[in-house]
Amino acid sequence: MKIVKNLAIIGVGLIGGSLALALKKSNVVAEVWGLGSSNDTLQKAKTLGVIDKIVAYEDLINADVIILASPVTAMFEICEKLAELNLPKDVIFSDVGSTKQSVLQAFQNAFSTIPENLVLAHPIAGRERSGVEAATADLFVNHRVIFTTLENTDYKALGIISSLWYTTGAEVSNMNIKAHDEILAATSHMPHILAYLLVDMLNCDLPHANIFSYAAGGFRDFTRIASSSPRMWRDICVNNAKNIKKLLQTYRTNLEKFEALLDNKDAEQIFNIFERAKKARDSFINREL
Amino acid sequence: MKIVKNLAIIGVGLIGGSLALALKKSNVVAEVWGLGSSNDTLQKAKTLGVIDKIVAYEDLINADVIILASPVTAMFEICEKLAELNLPKDVIFSDVGSTKQSVLQAFQNAFSTIPENLVLAHPIAGRERSGVEAATADLFVNHRVIFTTLENTDYKALGIISSLWYTTGAEVSNMNIKAHDEILAATSHMPHILAYLLVDMLNCDLPHANIFSYAAGGFRDFTRIASSSPRMWRDICVNNAKNIKKLLQTYRTNLEKFEALLDNKDAEQIFNIFERAKKARDSFINREL
Repeated sequence: MKIVKNLAIIGVGLIGGSLALALKKSNVVAEVWGLGSSNDTLQKAKTLGVIDKIVAYEDLINADVIILASPVTAMFEICEKLAELNLPKDVIFSDVGSTKQSVLQAFQNAFSTIPENLVLAHPIAGRERSGVEAATADLFVNHRVIFTTLENTDYKALGIISSLWYTTGAEVSNMNIKAHDEILAATSHMPHILAYLLVDMLNCDLPHANIFSYAAGGFRDFTRIASSSPRMWRDICVNNAKNIKKLLQTYRTNLEKFEALLDNKDAEQIFNIFERAKKARDSFINREL
Repeated sequence: MKIVKNLAIIGVGLIGGSLALALKKSNVVAEVWGLGSSNDTLQKAKTLGVIDKIVAYEDLINADVIILASPVTAMFEICEKLAELNLPKDVIFSDVGSTKQSVLQAFQNAFSTIPENLVLAHPIAGRERSGVEAATADLFVNHRVIFTTLENTDYKALGIISSLWYTTGAEVSNMNIKAHDEILAATSHMPHILAYLLVDMLNCDLPHANIFSYAAGGFRDFTRIASSSPRMWRDICVNNAKNIKKLLQTYRTNLEKFEALLDNKDAEQIFNIFERAKKARDSFINREL
């Protein structure tokens, strides 16, 4: 059964491409269209069978669902282009952005009012590899997709976007925008920044050559996310700067307290922190399985 | 061919137990003895076939090689006991400790002079699970073992301990003690502390309940090492406190600079840091394969 006739994805990278593949696999979209800023990427997506057709902005007049899957900063310009098209009132907009307040802002800026057919969604999935070549149909299986439904969100539009995500194997949940941006800053944006900055410190601030050759599996896993797309993570940082900064400040304070424990060789307090963290982490992992 | 007749391991946990299993598998030791502070652990090690025999400190008079594989802090007391035994001059001491300066100190304190037959070694391998139940014969395959040879280290002792490690599948290299403790602080001790403290912050300092349920694969990998043994990591922190503190200070300064970039929404500088880190990390990973 087709849920949607023409679905357009703007930005066919890892996430947009994987969504296209998942929807084609579950066979719920008649045609998946791709558009975006890079012709190379679109040609590759077409060749790989990720999208059915490359379209132009003008063609979106015939789209039923339009999904923004570019890095977040680019969405501001994309929304301007969409607003200029005077699309039919019933076209459904959705996105996959990691920082919802800024996606909302992009629509607000361009459309003056938030379209009722806008369904904000964020799939919590990724890989350290990026680009359409890394896209896979099963990227979202058993992963959460967080909807940040607004007061004026149209229920029919919400139903259609939810159905699409269900067919990808994802688990759909809902949250308010403010909580989303705070929680994701903690569980996702913070670890990425901490990993990037540790690798950068070892690379730039230490006198030891070939220091990475003495790193083991712990370091490799800890820094896996430092191989993620710099452009995507730059955009997330800029667009969720306030929440991230607040957490970085708390974290820095905690590091400073920890340094005092090191100065005092306070083995007991150090043990307590590590044990508490291990318990929290182990119960998170056990719940997950 | 047997390299050693009686080899005693003090502390039969993940590392000591894995070494015992690896040496038994390669069949280069006539008897592997176990001793340590926990009778339960030793019984388990015996039952699991990790060691051939449980012995007492007095029995070490007949040991040819004695390997300290306890958490580092416990080595101070173990060395005192060993010194009191007046063991034969040709017994070889070795260890698997993560902080070499403090292991050296433990021997220095107890023996007044550093024994010539002491071969300091550090296998760069681990798992987030600890204890003898987690021990495996292949833990060290393709992992580095760093020797921190001293000026007075006896070449015959060095040869024997190297041979033992070669048979485990490990890659043996050498480094001076100061460089070892600085480099490991950066590549191993720092990521562990950063991961423990991020989990602890999410658990203790944030207002959101069930925050871990919104974490994805990136968070899981980043925090894997926060499931490591709190006792082992407490000891590492206390015994390499100076080096770790220095790095934490640099890291905190870098975090603070990063916060300023967030304040200024300096997308270009943020991108540069992330891209530089990604390049460094990717080339480390590619070299490894």
